[in-house]
Amino acid sequence: MSLLRNDLFLRACKRQYVERTPVWMMRQAGRYLPEYRAVRAKADFLTMVHTPELAAEVTIQPVDLIGVDAAIIFSDILVIPEAMGMQLIMEESRGPRFPEPIRSREQIEALPVADPEHHLRYVTDAIAMTKNHLRDRVPLIGFAGAPWTLAAYMVEGGGTKSFGAIKKMMLDEPESLLALLEKLALSVRYYLEAQIDAGADAVQIFDTWGGILAPDHFRKFSLDFLADIVAKMRSEGAPVIVFSKGANSTLRDIASIGADVIGVDWTVDLAEAKEVVGENVALQGNLDPAYLYASPERIRQEVRSILRKYGKGPGHVFNLGHGILPDVPPDHARAMVKAVKDESPLFHSRT
Amino acid sequence: MSLLRNDLFLRACKRQYVERTPVWMMRQAGRYLPEYRAVRAKADFLTMVHTPELAAEVTIQPVDLIGVDAAIIFSDILVIPEAMGMQLIMEESRGPRFPEPIRSREQIEALPVADPEHHLRYVTDAIAMTKNHLRDRVPLIGFAGAPWTLAAYMVEGGGTKSFGAIKKMMLDEPESLLALLEKLALSVRYYLEAQIDAGADAVQIFDTWGGILAPDHFRKFSLDFLADIVAKMRSEGAPVIVFSKGANSTLRDIASIGADVIGVDWTVDLAEAKEVVGENVALQGNLDPAYLYASPERIRQEVRSILRKYGKGPGHVFNLGHGILPDVPPDHARAMVKAVKDESPLFHSRT
Repeated sequence: MSLLRNDLFLRACKRQYVERTPVWMMRQAGRYLPEYRAVRAKADFLTMVHTPELAAEVTIQPVDLIGVDAAIIFSDILVIPEAMGMQLIMEESRGPRFPEPIRSREQIEALPVADPEHHLRYVTDAIAMTKNHLRDRVPLIGFAGAPWTLAAYMVEGGGTKSFGAIKKMMLDEPESLLALLEKLALSVRYYLEAQIDAGADAVQIFDTWGGILAPDHFRKFSLDFLADIVAKMRSEGAPVIVFSKGANSTLRDIASIGADVIGVDWTVDLAEAKEVVGENVALQGNLDPAYLYASPERIRQEVRSILRKYGKGPGHVFNLGHGILPDVPPDHARAMVKAVKDESPLFHSRT
Repeated sequence: MSLLRNDLFLRACKRQYVERTPVWMMRQAGRYLPEYRAVRAKADFLTMVHTPELAAEVTIQPVDLIGVDAAIIFSDILVIPEAMGMQLIMEESRGPRFPEPIRSREQIEALPVADPEHHLRYVTDAIAMTKNHLRDRVPLIGFAGAPWTLAAYMVEGGGTKSFGAIKKMMLDEPESLLALLEKLALSVRYYLEAQIDAGADAVQIFDTWGGILAPDHFRKFSLDFLADIVAKMRSEGAPVIVFSKGANSTLRDIASIGADVIGVDWTVDLAEAKEVVGENVALQGNLDPAYLYASPERIRQEVRSILRKYGKGPGHVFNLGHGILPDVPPDHARAMVKAVKDESPLFHSRT
């Protein structure tokens, strides 16, 4: 099926037999690595995202340094709103900001659907370059933000705990929000297809803010659009992963949209999740990223506990339940990866 | 059973017949009210908390101004760590801080159990004074933080997204954390009993950070202590409410600890929650606080949708799914309360 020397990740996504559980980490190309910080010292975050050589360089770092079973292209979910013409400001201290947030129907109507060919070429170039450098050692994952999550950033414009602006729009002007979400769903779909065309072996959709919605509103304003993207995508066999943080109450619904893999955070019991999602969907997760502050021996214990929760059989991709934290010691990330490699063969015996 | 003129709230807590669903709001004595801000202009937050006259004054405001069916004593969950000797700094812009957080076994061993008689007298005085001013119009709710949530604040010392310090302690030094939680559980129990003795008609335990834990760790480091408090409390008939934000996956367990009422946030489907918790527990919630930014007509629709979710029968206390937001128009809070009063009798017909 694949020329990759290590295709454990792709086989687990498709629920095929693997000798051991594959492992990667969300935000694995990130600030916890001194080698990443060395690149970052020379260029700001958005310059790194926009420069294929730099993006490719840091994408490969955790493959070499941590031993993960998949690379994920270094980028940001907010490149789509940027490709739709919004000015994006990234400051490490304050988080991302759109100085002109989307608040009116007129603004939504004026927004174009993102054209990956013209405005996101730097990402597809970075993917092609990374594939070339990786020399088929491990698969490369592309990604995008979910329409709901992107809309939340675009409407709020900056950090928020209450998400008051988008929730007000959702209730008072649902048609405007739905129009925005439709443009985003098309943009996300074209963008993911372009990443697969450029060489991505799998793609992940991040619904970071899916969990802030009441279940009925999650279904209508997030899940329906995810289902539409997954149904219409020409994925040509590349697995599609949907990660919806905090969407515990709606796991059964998320599992029904046709994605190959559902990513879950650490507040989900993996044994219960496996029962809920059934036989057709693989699960990705779900060590609490804060557990990497603990000692390597304790990390190994927690890894074992998660492997036991999932239990025997195919369909588990080990990951954190959210992105790796910037001040985790790299040795602890390595300890986690090594523990997965050491402890997981037990759960994949052929007999 | 009660001399109160409006005891709808207490009857709903005990799953007895009510003519309509009672309603109150977490943080209802708060910054969204101009009358509260007028008091706050003369005294800082902690001075208000420490001064029974001021606490009583703002506690009663929403009863008069918004028409809620219960008052909740104006205070803060962090009065317990303060009563245990920790210096507490409250700045509106930065949130609460403990400049000397608890990080070692020695610090934990040196902490006394809070003595409400000596160190929290200002709260019991405020309760007695409020009861006096209320003249039995509506019940008065006392409250405390859950041991886990208090420990999280005490160990972190300030704002955090990752809760790295307490999670590291949880994994690397579980015995230290358990010792801290035991002292907190005793403190919380004595404090709640003192509030009931002073006149509180019900008490609520806030486990604001219960939802950040993996389910197994939530059971061990939060729920076991809540269960212990509820089991040992001399509550003398005063209903005990446990509010555990984000603890969706563990609702069944929370329902089993013997509390009268479980408070749930808006990410829980109330119809599903009612099925999960069964016949012995009432439910409190769960309108998304951000929905109060929407128009009064839309607020009414959302209120109706939540009443329908709970459906017929006793045991529902209407509330927000978390505290009211500081910039909500008071008219919108009134619109919510009025909608509950107008729309709920339908769900309580005797036939």
